[in-house]
Amino acid sequence: MKNSINYSYEALKKFCTDAFLKFGFNKDECDIIVDVLLTSDLYGIESHGMQRLVRYHKGIEKGLIKIDAKPEIVFETPVSAVIEGNDGMGQLLGHKAMSLAIEKAKKTGMAIVSVRNSNHYGIAGYYAKMACNEGLIGMSMTNSEAIMVPTFARKAMLGSNPIAIAMPAEPYDFFFDASTTVVTRGKLEIYNKLDKPLPDMWALDKEGKKSSDASDVLKNIVAKAGGGIMPLGGETEQSGSHKGYGYGMLCEIFCSILSMGLTSNHTHIGGKGGTCHGFIAIDPAVFGDAGAIKEHLSTFLQELREAPKADGQDRIYTHGEKEVFAYKDRMENGIDVNIGTVAEMVDLCKYLDMDIKTYLGEEAEQLTLQKSSYDM
Amino acid sequence: MKNSINYSYEALKKFCTDAFLKFGFNKDECDIIVDVLLTSDLYGIESHGMQRLVRYHKGIEKGLIKIDAKPEIVFETPVSAVIEGNDGMGQLLGHKAMSLAIEKAKKTGMAIVSVRNSNHYGIAGYYAKMACNEGLIGMSMTNSEAIMVPTFARKAMLGSNPIAIAMPAEPYDFFFDASTTVVTRGKLEIYNKLDKPLPDMWALDKEGKKSSDASDVLKNIVAKAGGGIMPLGGETEQSGSHKGYGYGMLCEIFCSILSMGLTSNHTHIGGKGGTCHGFIAIDPAVFGDAGAIKEHLSTFLQELREAPKADGQDRIYTHGEKEVFAYKDRMENGIDVNIGTVAEMVDLCKYLDMDIKTYLGEEAEQLTLQKSSYDM
Repeated sequence: MKNSINYSYEALKKFCTDAFLKFGFNKDECDIIVDVLLTSDLYGIESHGMQRLVRYHKGIEKGLIKIDAKPEIVFETPVSAVIEGNDGMGQLLGHKAMSLAIEKAKKTGMAIVSVRNSNHYGIAGYYAKMACNEGLIGMSMTNSEAIMVPTFARKAMLGSNPIAIAMPAEPYDFFFDASTTVVTRGKLEIYNKLDKPLPDMWALDKEGKKSSDASDVLKNIVAKAGGGIMPLGGETEQSGSHKGYGYGMLCEIFCSILSMGLTSNHTHIGGKGGTCHGFIAIDPAVFGDAGAIKEHLSTFLQELREAPKADGQDRIYTHGEKEVFAYKDRMENGIDVNIGTVAEMVDLCKYLDMDIKTYLGEEAEQLTLQKSSYDM
Repeated sequence: MKNSINYSYEALKKFCTDAFLKFGFNKDECDIIVDVLLTSDLYGIESHGMQRLVRYHKGIEKGLIKIDAKPEIVFETPVSAVIEGNDGMGQLLGHKAMSLAIEKAKKTGMAIVSVRNSNHYGIAGYYAKMACNEGLIGMSMTNSEAIMVPTFARKAMLGSNPIAIAMPAEPYDFFFDASTTVVTRGKLEIYNKLDKPLPDMWALDKEGKKSSDASDVLKNIVAKAGGGIMPLGGETEQSGSHKGYGYGMLCEIFCSILSMGLTSNHTHIGGKGGTCHGFIAIDPAVFGDAGAIKEHLSTFLQELREAPKADGQDRIYTHGEKEVFAYKDRMENGIDVNIGTVAEMVDLCKYLDMDIKTYLGEEAEQLTLQKSSYDM
């Protein structure tokens, strides 16, 4: 059996848009949600694209995500705002908040918008890139269900807490988007599916000891039984554990603290989501000639790419470069969606009464028959 | 022989102040420089206190640090400024720049000041704490002589590039200050002195391969022969190397890029320093009730300290806690200055024609005789 089915960008866009329309979002909202999701797949970050559809589906079903939520700006100054998300869709709140930060930064030079009571918003980098596309420095952060175990603890207290930053440069923008944990939960799920032992510096069992057992760690995370993923830098101060934990805290400050929202350890408990985000936009023009600053960054990035390589390496990447190539490739050659995700998309078609063959093709339709036969 | 001599805070303050007066700084300037240096020792960050005196001495001697430098604000808006440091003392430029950021943030809500052509400014956290002491969120970053080898490279291209953030909380402020490399050069120097092999994920030799040989790595760094220290996250993407490299880039953007200064790979070449810094001040009051926000952070920090501990651990630290206890202890019981550093302080006394016994005591005076006898 094939491991994946290749779909064109247009085909996935049509499927996704119609699915979110069926959920009850309006056309403008669907355009935003779908753009966030598909940008992730186009960038090669599969974990946050089509693969997350099932999560949004469940979130809507359970009432964690409220389709009719009306966000409110509860505090505002010319350089800042706090948005009460009222359990709305994360992508819509993220887009609204970063748009507001951009609007303010264009007037004042810089702005920060903090959002509470939202939901999973896709890739953090999407929103950083929104500012970058307007010639600004963009930063985007989010907390999440607790998954990071602080140094010397055995209980997850912070989320994967990604920090993204994007800044205009030639020939590619600088674009950095990474969790402050050593890896994300998605990576553990992949190791689990492949039945591979986890690398040494990734995860902790429920006693707070190193674990290579992906299945056990994931089970404990879901049950909130203890353990989780290590901060970037592992579990000891010698390898810098307290630093990853510190960057996780930085993220928490801009997301849950400034918005008076839920810190990661209190989100996703008792039928409540409560995810918080933070968005920063800065106009380089308040530091001088924005064109010259962009050129200065571009020169440094080029010097990095051209620096002497380590023995056995033939390329040094600057952040954002891989995404540029992945985007181009996938727009031209389509997006390979893994078969497990396609099965979830088939389920979604059934749930939303969408024709499987029309949206996902004959192969997917057969996949479901095959799957059904396994079920019997 | 003793490994260290214990001095009171007051004794070190007197010695340091008089030394910088002798170098030609005025009393107000000396107060700032000495406070930055001694705060580091009081916080337990020995690598950046008295131990750095020799570096400032050499910097002044070589003309890298210009005592009469007049900093200029070359670009300014209500939320931002760029300061041309004209090779001034890092502590003075740092203090001036953060003071300006604080002043602006109190009026506008937030501000960023970027500084070019400065010198080593001590601990990044000092300046973050300045803002915190005024009820603001403070951030401080600096680039430095290239020491971080980017993922897949074999040449150091970024500095140790610390990022510090401080925010008011009870009973201790949140205070995070860490290099974006897995460790700093100071740690390698300690391993070298003790003749200990370096841990696996710290350093690279001149071919870009893992090295446990502190002496060889340090020699190559000085000679700019290749190799250096790994980013936080080590040398592979599996352990998150690209993330530490990314945080190093974030630092570089706020320091050298926005100020149009020298990126780390161009500093400290050909008799030029060129260090750049970045300072951010944010007033929590532009997000709502600053008192409530402070309480919210304090609650989260308390929850972290009280979280279940890993097997074999009895304490979870929040960032800034260790410094609070070190400060209290050293103010009460004095500061142990290691004997190598005392020897450097004795040299400085001789150079500046200061009476060794008066400033550093009989033990130190004997130390120099002993040292001299070794020299013969």
